[in-house]
Amino acid sequence: MCCSPDSAALAAAAGPRLDRLRAACADAGMGAFFVRDTSNIAWLTAFDGVFDDEDAHALLVTPSDAVLHTDSRYSEAARAAAAREGAVAVDDARVAHAKFVAETFAARHADRPSVEAEAIALGIEDSMSLAGFRALEAAFAEVPERPKLRETSDFIVNLRAVKDVQEIARMKAAQAVTDAAFAHIVGYMRPGMTEREVQIELEDFMRRHGAEGLAFPSIVAAGANGASPHAIPGQTVLEAGQCVVLDFGARAHGYCSDMTRTVFLGQPSQKMRDAYAAIRSANEQVEAVLKPGVTGKAMHELAERALADAGFAGKMGHSLGHGVGIDIHEQPALSPRNEQPLVPGNVVTVEPGIYLPGEFGMRLEDFGVITPDGFEVFTRSTHDPVIL
Amino acid sequence: MCCSPDSAALAAAAGPRLDRLRAACADAGMGAFFVRDTSNIAWLTAFDGVFDDEDAHALLVTPSDAVLHTDSRYSEAARAAAAREGAVAVDDARVAHAKFVAETFAARHADRPSVEAEAIALGIEDSMSLAGFRALEAAFAEVPERPKLRETSDFIVNLRAVKDVQEIARMKAAQAVTDAAFAHIVGYMRPGMTEREVQIELEDFMRRHGAEGLAFPSIVAAGANGASPHAIPGQTVLEAGQCVVLDFGARAHGYCSDMTRTVFLGQPSQKMRDAYAAIRSANEQVEAVLKPGVTGKAMHELAERALADAGFAGKMGHSLGHGVGIDIHEQPALSPRNEQPLVPGNVVTVEPGIYLPGEFGMRLEDFGVITPDGFEVFTRSTHDPVIL
Repeated sequence: MCCSPDSAALAAAAGPRLDRLRAACADAGMGAFFVRDTSNIAWLTAFDGVFDDEDAHALLVTPSDAVLHTDSRYSEAARAAAAREGAVAVDDARVAHAKFVAETFAARHADRPSVEAEAIALGIEDSMSLAGFRALEAAFAEVPERPKLRETSDFIVNLRAVKDVQEIARMKAAQAVTDAAFAHIVGYMRPGMTEREVQIELEDFMRRHGAEGLAFPSIVAAGANGASPHAIPGQTVLEAGQCVVLDFGARAHGYCSDMTRTVFLGQPSQKMRDAYAAIRSANEQVEAVLKPGVTGKAMHELAERALADAGFAGKMGHSLGHGVGIDIHEQPALSPRNEQPLVPGNVVTVEPGIYLPGEFGMRLEDFGVITPDGFEVFTRSTHDPVIL
Repeated sequence: MCCSPDSAALAAAAGPRLDRLRAACADAGMGAFFVRDTSNIAWLTAFDGVFDDEDAHALLVTPSDAVLHTDSRYSEAARAAAAREGAVAVDDARVAHAKFVAETFAARHADRPSVEAEAIALGIEDSMSLAGFRALEAAFAEVPERPKLRETSDFIVNLRAVKDVQEIARMKAAQAVTDAAFAHIVGYMRPGMTEREVQIELEDFMRRHGAEGLAFPSIVAAGANGASPHAIPGQTVLEAGQCVVLDFGARAHGYCSDMTRTVFLGQPSQKMRDAYAAIRSANEQVEAVLKPGVTGKAMHELAERALADAGFAGKMGHSLGHGVGIDIHEQPALSPRNEQPLVPGNVVTVEPGIYLPGEFGMRLEDFGVITPDGFEVFTRSTHDPVIL
């Protein structure tokens, strides 16, 4: 099947990820970390087939251990994963996460009374809810000794920006389903169908060919609808002479793919041809120079220049790309605001677009990984104009 | 088409909902409310076809106006909805939500200088992120006068627990698709298929018959898998002699449906028959007495007693039901912890279950609305045992 990489490459390992977090905590002066974001927990534990979209879990990572606190709905699957994966204990005590972490922290701390609890910084994610934060404050007020709570932004998300070999294999698998779906849909779609009909067929194909779900709700935007980068597919009927933006992705083994192609229903106008040549040039110029050391800002600006050189200055209106992984939008961004150099293992999209309100929109998006000396594109579908 | 209620009943009105929030704020001593939860915003604005699953919006509701702050990806659709719906202004200023609300609040306040800003409580949701809260504190520190931030739990969620006629029509439409999907799937599924194959067909049917999406990832759990109330459908093959739990729902016009049926692949064992009779009795006893004034706790206990009377004491392990609306889990709960009397307009599920680890599980779930004198069930599918 198109989406089955070899199983060795798919096997994940929690240990190295937990150790990366522990090292980062030590560097930042934090003695432990309390994780509530489900994607962060899925990454750190490397538990497959346990988590869904409910934020029903918490993970406490200390220098010596890691404990997942979950509820009875998930504990059987979590224990099975822990037995396979190691490195993480599972506890389904029927108490609130906040009380669990406060009591667990206090119990761990009792083992090393020479350190003042107040001298320990417990990292927390500022993506957690305000209610969760208040509960944490209240729970620590109930135990004899408490750490300082250190609010962090994107601390684990930043670690996740560098993918390991297993993650890359999973995203290639997700992209293989996505490429197959594109090949299918160009043979299926034709004038007279609605955007929504095309979307349903596209998504159904991905599910029936190995996707465990969608990376995000697909975009199928015909004609002027394509000028909205986030159009919701509706009852608009596809018409000859239009171009249609297809932006979609699968989820496989817990990881996302993301691609956009713009196809033509019959011969495109000269303006459409020019715009398509411009986004193709922008895409390919960037992909040719992406490598460790370049910045997201430089890549964005290169794409903007390529579009401007072709007569479409200022028509993109969004940033050039974003990281992809367990979540569809991760670090790093290829945007004017990212002046950090890219590093090997970063997985990013490259998606220049041109949007002409009232006329049409188009976008050409691949995704791939920064390698030691360049950029490996996961997307296999052609950049040549697809004229149906 | 099965899912098209008359359009008058579908037309929503933001004005009355905003006024309910304003009245509740006045009762609670709050002068304005800052809303970040997207479902709360969708409910208050009654904007159709604007919001997706990105938390990209904020709404400031004052006694005299309401302003939606969104970004350029959404502003065209939001302005079109505002023109249809009224009551809400749209602003897509390229600033952070926190800065927007602080400056908008300060500008409103400048119009009535006789009130001390500090005397005004601005309601916020404690479901907002800690980062969002810190940003709000920082943004208000930058304006000359600032209100007190009043952290609230479920303030708007509680208002949403009483549905209006439009919301009920939308949920009936969602349920009609769901009932149709059940009729389809019982003609489709058979031993030898995997749970995942059945799930894909079920979900594809809903999408092709009017669902704009799913209310939640469907459960198809065969045999012993059915004993996990939140099983994820997998490669387990359906076998003759098993019972299969199907728990699924559609999303139509922004609202969810939710139903569970347990079907039998061939003649059930006596134990399965007894368990099915027990959950049916529990379901029907509760539905017969649901009405304004009874509590969620009393309903849960009635179901537990019915199960115990049939010899299945303590085998449910979850609460009897939950509210449904824009979100799949809303207020009120039919649970031991809810001692509030139900009121007309509450929409709840009734879903007694029996779970026998290693053997099988089953659940029978309807949903409907509390009427002035009883309970109107939206679910049309039979309670009779379905034996395939």
